[in-house]
Amino acid sequence: MTAMRFAHETLGQRVLFGTGAAGEHVAAEIERLGAARPMVVAAEPERALAETATAGATPVLWWGEVAQHVPVEVAEGARAAAAEHAVDVIVSVGGGSTTGLAKAVALTTGLPIIAVPTTYAGSEATNVWGLTEDRTKTTGVDPRVLPTAVVYDAQLSRTLPVELSVASGLNGLAHCVDSLWAPKADPINQAMALEGARALNLALRGIVADPQDLDAREQALYGCYLAAVAFASAGSGLHHKICHVLGGTFDLPHAPTHATVLPYVLALNAPGVPELAARLAAALGHIPADGQDPAVAAVYALNVLRETVDAPARLSDHGFTAAGIPEAVDRILDAAPASNPVPVSGAGVERLLTDALTGATPTPAVPATV
Amino acid sequence: MTAMRFAHETLGQRVLFGTGAAGEHVAAEIERLGAARPMVVAAEPERALAETATAGATPVLWWGEVAQHVPVEVAEGARAAAAEHAVDVIVSVGGGSTTGLAKAVALTTGLPIIAVPTTYAGSEATNVWGLTEDRTKTTGVDPRVLPTAVVYDAQLSRTLPVELSVASGLNGLAHCVDSLWAPKADPINQAMALEGARALNLALRGIVADPQDLDAREQALYGCYLAAVAFASAGSGLHHKICHVLGGTFDLPHAPTHATVLPYVLALNAPGVPELAARLAAALGHIPADGQDPAVAAVYALNVLRETVDAPARLSDHGFTAAGIPEAVDRILDAAPASNPVPVSGAGVERLLTDALTGATPTPAVPATV
Repeated sequence: MTAMRFAHETLGQRVLFGTGAAGEHVAAEIERLGAARPMVVAAEPERALAETATAGATPVLWWGEVAQHVPVEVAEGARAAAAEHAVDVIVSVGGGSTTGLAKAVALTTGLPIIAVPTTYAGSEATNVWGLTEDRTKTTGVDPRVLPTAVVYDAQLSRTLPVELSVASGLNGLAHCVDSLWAPKADPINQAMALEGARALNLALRGIVADPQDLDAREQALYGCYLAAVAFASAGSGLHHKICHVLGGTFDLPHAPTHATVLPYVLALNAPGVPELAARLAAALGHIPADGQDPAVAAVYALNVLRETVDAPARLSDHGFTAAGIPEAVDRILDAAPASNPVPVSGAGVERLLTDALTGATPTPAVPATV
Repeated sequence: MTAMRFAHETLGQRVLFGTGAAGEHVAAEIERLGAARPMVVAAEPERALAETATAGATPVLWWGEVAQHVPVEVAEGARAAAAEHAVDVIVSVGGGSTTGLAKAVALTTGLPIIAVPTTYAGSEATNVWGLTEDRTKTTGVDPRVLPTAVVYDAQLSRTLPVELSVASGLNGLAHCVDSLWAPKADPINQAMALEGARALNLALRGIVADPQDLDAREQALYGCYLAAVAFASAGSGLHHKICHVLGGTFDLPHAPTHATVLPYVLALNAPGVPELAARLAAALGHIPADGQDPAVAAVYALNVLRETVDAPARLSDHGFTAAGIPEAVDRILDAAPASNPVPVSGAGVERLLTDALTGATPTPAVPATV
């Protein structure tokens, strides 16, 4: 039995990086598409950023109504406006909800999207769309919603608050780490995920040291782009299944939950993937010392990063209590991927949640090093 | 001035790996395309491999005339046959010339290609086509020639002779290394190139130790796929410009020239890109020791690999002589990319060629380590 058996799909996009160059890049991409009637999708708070990003273009329509989870009535309004103005390209400037609305318009109209992300959401790198109707979210995959071009400009994310940047960046790191062992993990998305982890380690340290550091902001955009590419390809692993239960059933907040749970999932899984653990440790800036177990090295490296950026450390700070553990264990056992690199037992998940609840030091179950 | 400014184009493809699974994967991809009338392009020596790879399909046309550099009259014959048989998908099984012929047919017909590579050429991962008319080769880039799906099956490359495998694998490694500093190098293709180098280091050692080692054959296919992706994106760097002069003007053989010249170009350039040199050394299995210069580490790691696989080591073995050096230097200076990480001087190129001629130990121009 040989090791490599997988189907990997690469998604064709143009990805443009340049700090201060968004206006120039957006204009060039519109021209490359042979388009002339852009619709700009940007929420009111991002209006000024959107004007900067489209300074070289001549929009025929500005759309400012953007809401979380893309309500279907908002999408229908934007689609109608696009048709009325004979729009031939969508330029989205903003975070995940903004990109999501542009995708909803592209889904039915087939219009190309030029996405200009101002946060670290990553939606711009995937062919996944979502729409919410009657409080129910439907998601799907369609090639039409993949942005044709993505324009990254660190200048546009410079004012993203540090705490939000750290939470968003750690969410990206969780995408990277979970992609190492997710159901459709393969060597290609593992390599992207490790490169993303490398960039995010630099990015988060840099942003915490100086929120105006444009090099760090570039690394954050780059790392979260790779995180999205890897995660879209690999699918949800154990970490995301656990966070989905904690968010869905116990209403815990998204980003802090991811940031808190990640090291415990890594401690559980790393002993099952020692080679990847060693590469993750190296990506996070820690070369395992002679004789150090790679799982120990990876967990150590992640903890050093989390302490440096003052990441959330206890689920008890976010409303979770020991009373919730039994139900959470049952639901997580139901959801855990069969392909997880180590067996997922009730006792293992209970220990994981207990440790995450109290902020106990995450410790891989490996033989102590000599 | 921040570091990241680039335009990177990802090419959308399905990439399927599975040893012994070519027949199953090809059949599934034909069905996914909704196609029913496949044309199989495979040279006569690969006919048996092609029958294995298309065992689950019902070809309406077998095309066996394949020639190096894709003569235009061969392409026209294949195009006419495809039209006559109302073909709706091309399945190519073979090396670079076979993939190249499939691309030539796709270029004018728009037919999708399912490529099944049996060597490490890498053409299956690019949108580059080539055609030869009156001994002149024309090349171009067109999205229509990018294979829709690539099916890798190590079983089909198991009988590729060791010497040819090593030459082809080192050619792939040269693509990886040169992609680190080529004119359109960016962090994304650098990451792909380093992952390719990691795989090729394992692959070549494994194939030399046991040519039947399917794990090693998988790593070779995987590494050369990444090499092609990275190189297609990054463009030709100094290494390829030098080899182009040595091949074009002095008629030196392709693969041995690449294998011989690579460590000297690395020795020249690595001191200009210390961080990438450290990552390349690690990818090749050598973590720089404390205080070791990264350029020294990278060149050392490459040399260890080359010695292990008994790579060609002297241009004098391939017909080059000291008399050719002055003309070669002039031509290389004309062709050297302006973006090379270290300045390219006449003296530097002369030293490089003199060292490569005689097989002198490649030595980076860095301060000695303490």
